[in-house]
Amino acid sequence: MQLNPNFANLSQSYLFTDIARRVAAYKEEHPNADIIRLGIGDVTRPLAKPVADALCAAGAEMADAATFMGYGPEHGYPFLREAIANYYKTKHGVTLSPDEIFVSDGAKSDCGNILELFTADNTALIPDPVYPAYVDANVMDGRRIEYVSGTRENGFLPAPPEGQKADIIYLCSPNNPTGAAYTKKQLAAWIRYAYSSGAVILFDAAYECFVSDKDVPHSVYEVEGAKECVVEICSLSKTAGFTGLRCGYTVVPKGLRPAGEDLRGMWSRRQQAKFNEVPYVVQRAAEAVFTPEGLKASFENVDYYKKNAAVIAKALDKAGVWYSGGVNSPYLWLACPGNLTSWDFFDKLLAEAGVVGTPGSGFGKNGEGYFRLTGFGDAARTEEAAQRLTAFLKKL
Amino acid sequence: MQLNPNFANLSQSYLFTDIARRVAAYKEEHPNADIIRLGIGDVTRPLAKPVADALCAAGAEMADAATFMGYGPEHGYPFLREAIANYYKTKHGVTLSPDEIFVSDGAKSDCGNILELFTADNTALIPDPVYPAYVDANVMDGRRIEYVSGTRENGFLPAPPEGQKADIIYLCSPNNPTGAAYTKKQLAAWIRYAYSSGAVILFDAAYECFVSDKDVPHSVYEVEGAKECVVEICSLSKTAGFTGLRCGYTVVPKGLRPAGEDLRGMWSRRQQAKFNEVPYVVQRAAEAVFTPEGLKASFENVDYYKKNAAVIAKALDKAGVWYSGGVNSPYLWLACPGNLTSWDFFDKLLAEAGVVGTPGSGFGKNGEGYFRLTGFGDAARTEEAAQRLTAFLKKL
Repeated sequence: MQLNPNFANLSQSYLFTDIARRVAAYKEEHPNADIIRLGIGDVTRPLAKPVADALCAAGAEMADAATFMGYGPEHGYPFLREAIANYYKTKHGVTLSPDEIFVSDGAKSDCGNILELFTADNTALIPDPVYPAYVDANVMDGRRIEYVSGTRENGFLPAPPEGQKADIIYLCSPNNPTGAAYTKKQLAAWIRYAYSSGAVILFDAAYECFVSDKDVPHSVYEVEGAKECVVEICSLSKTAGFTGLRCGYTVVPKGLRPAGEDLRGMWSRRQQAKFNEVPYVVQRAAEAVFTPEGLKASFENVDYYKKNAAVIAKALDKAGVWYSGGVNSPYLWLACPGNLTSWDFFDKLLAEAGVVGTPGSGFGKNGEGYFRLTGFGDAARTEEAAQRLTAFLKKL
Repeated sequence: MQLNPNFANLSQSYLFTDIARRVAAYKEEHPNADIIRLGIGDVTRPLAKPVADALCAAGAEMADAATFMGYGPEHGYPFLREAIANYYKTKHGVTLSPDEIFVSDGAKSDCGNILELFTADNTALIPDPVYPAYVDANVMDGRRIEYVSGTRENGFLPAPPEGQKADIIYLCSPNNPTGAAYTKKQLAAWIRYAYSSGAVILFDAAYECFVSDKDVPHSVYEVEGAKECVVEICSLSKTAGFTGLRCGYTVVPKGLRPAGEDLRGMWSRRQQAKFNEVPYVVQRAAEAVFTPEGLKASFENVDYYKKNAAVIAKALDKAGVWYSGGVNSPYLWLACPGNLTSWDFFDKLLAEAGVVGTPGSGFGKNGEGYFRLTGFGDAARTEEAAQRLTAFLKKL
């Protein structure tokens, strides 16, 4: 028997373990320190009431023989697939057929599992800095990875590397970790590049709910030609606080060309064989997100996070620190002042301001010298953190 | 870009579509026919009250900022991993460490996804008849598949094919679709075979809750040597009616030898990169299953299904029809009398008794001439179906 040898090539990430270790050490030395965490990538606001109500009502259905629900359709109940299609139509102006929408337990699973539809001989093109799961999933398959560089010069929005060959392209916009978001025009260039390379774009739209700018699309399908070469992967994690409830969806359009029109059928077979549908109670909660009341209440939470991000942005503006994100995103990706490395900045910020963030070097080579802060915390604490940040940056 | 060419080798199954089509046609011709469905592989009893209560209580937690739960640990909350370890200890007499238990969304996902830890060059050994997802997952990888035959002569419990090479062995006991269950002695032979072949056994224990016979193990780890070469995959779908709620678990022991002691670490990395944890509310419901009250109430449902299976078994005994299953299983796998094919028997049983079952030929070559009935229906309707079956078989 042969074990998959590619696993040996995975790089072990100690990013969050290291952060926890350093914070614990600091707390041991300073037991009374009042630490504020702005490193968190998780939501903190509770489920919106209409969503929680739907969850509980569905739970009650499960307790009664007359309304109990067993196995559901593998790709999601029609009520949810239709609700998502309607969201695309009314919110993004994008027409999708419900059978192009595959309900799943989240964007991370789909971003990795969809690689099974492609051979290991393809080349994956991945931006750096990057959400590490894209890289790991490709390394496990032994697939060749080429990187495109996000830099301060391109605003962490790398353009397609014309002339370079790619088969599978990962894009995440608004981006985790950099908060940068592509405009329609920039995405159109990526679509032209993918089309001419015979490539497919896997577009992670998990942060679409944070988009405010008119020229930044919520869905890649707002851009012409996208349905011919883009699979869009999205999630309710950030839109509606589903990080602990787990529901996402992947759109595989019928008109995909370079990838072959049958990609939708292949994904359907893959999910039938290796996935079980999302829990009925979660699908009912997700359906409630897409009602007018559910959207209103869920977006109040999104606005709460956006205000936090704006508060941090203001502190950085005041200090004249360069950053990407802060609009169209809960993330702020700042250039560490004074040529500090990401970890040096982490240590200093913790020691002198009692604020915890995430070193950018944990997201790839190009992340060195950068630092991620997020708007997912409590509003009052974020205000306090912003004041400390202002004082800290003044002294630096 | 190259699409995975192995998908073209998947055989399209029309089993359940064909059943639905034939039943619909019959109903159109006989609008007043009173049809009883004994083909169902899904549970029908509602969640046990302590389980439903825990689900709703967790749902309420999600609606309050003070108790809201976001991302959880990738492999399941410690409270659930410990509850499962405790179930193994007290119910099966098997000692597991909680970090050998990986919580997932169900057995089907894990049975397929775990193949990523092995190269495509390995040979998979799969019994026929078989749950089709094992085959599909291996076909998608282009892995060579060898079959071992379940037959009436071996009671649909094939013995290891001594002298034949295998790397990855699928066993499901109690079996879906045949209802047959291996004894400890029979499993010991499989473990010796796997060990000497340098193979790993993927043991699907999804139906363990139906075991009554003392010499049939609930967990493969009741058999000596199993921890050295077996990964056990289990689910709450049948134990506690979680088919629509989705929670299972995979045990990857620390002492695996032929597969390499690192298989546990590899599975952990795979799940970290490509899976999100099971919803918090579902994990709380699952935790409640393993409390004394939860187990008592859930097993009342299991007993309900077992009584149904016994009612059907009695009808078959009376008619002198050969079958496997009916004890240790919700399934009865009968030899179609009069040399009828599976589909001929289906049509006759529907036309003459108004009872729907599942043609065995849908589960592989060796299923031809066999037929699956299940105990998952309503008790009164199952009694009625058994009476009709008795009359039908007498006339046949």
